[in-house]
Amino acid sequence: MSDNSCVFCREVVGKHRASVIYETESVIAFMDIAPVEPGHVLVIPKKHFVNILDIDYEDYLEVHRVTKYLSPFIVRAVNADGINIGQNNGKSANQRVFHYHVHIIPRFQERELKWGRMQAENWQLEEVAEKVRSEIEKNGSSEGLFLK
Amino acid sequence: MSDNSCVFCREVVGKHRASVIYETESVIAFMDIAPVEPGHVLVIPKKHFVNILDIDYEDYLEVHRVTKYLSPFIVRAVNADGINIGQNNGKSANQRVFHYHVHIIPRFQERELKWGRMQAENWQLEEVAEKVRSEIEKNGSSEGLFLK
Repeated sequence: MSDNSCVFCREVVGKHRASVIYETESVIAFMDIAPVEPGHVLVIPKKHFVNILDIDYEDYLEVHRVTKYLSPFIVRAVNADGINIGQNNGKSANQRVFHYHVHIIPRFQERELKWGRMQAENWQLEEVAEKVRSEIEKNGSSEGLFLK
Repeated sequence: MSDNSCVFCREVVGKHRASVIYETESVIAFMDIAPVEPGHVLVIPKKHFVNILDIDYEDYLEVHRVTKYLSPFIVRAVNADGINIGQNNGKSANQRVFHYHVHIIPRFQERELKWGRMQAENWQLEEVAEKVRSEIEKNGSSEGLFLK
């Protein structure tokens, strides 16, 4: 259930070479190295699945449970106004890494909604990751948190 | 748990005024009236929730279970090469209807990946819906179904 040719299996799951913000027995969440906006997080199953067709329901539902769980903490960490959740399947749908992954992309009222990627340095990713980890630790309620 | 000012509560859940393709006790799936590509489906909870922050886990996980369940049938119905799953939260993230909904958007190798909406007539939506219902009824395995 691990594929050594897969960068997520080898580097993220295997070696934790990423700014990891959260982990469960079967899921790991980390900062996207080429974020669309600061605070862009990826949530993946630890087992290797290619896309929505081959992932099993147990891992799939755990990935999505964690996606919802993390959303308010990411909103608070970067003071976002909105969030896009995205998950691409197949080259024709712009999938680039063939290991199932969910994008959590914070959005900001004052910035245009774009999909281009930024280059980020490790220290920049780690800086945002630390803010998200801190919000997870505080475990504040999402009540009173409104999106615009 | 229903909001009469909400078009999904009133027209889709309340009156079934949509090309519905699938329904469970708490979830309903139907053709988007302004599809990005033919076969564009929305999956929503029957209860009114605004976004990923306020939806409860039970309804949220059922919406996402149904999203995965429907994906291979939609791929077969329109002969898609890929699928984008998208879910927008907040105006800044391009949310337009403030009732939680997941987009299932089929993609095709020969067509550019765009996000613009098409105008579709009811009979066109119904034509695609009928193909999806037929695939659901056949309930074929997604093994051997590869995305490109």
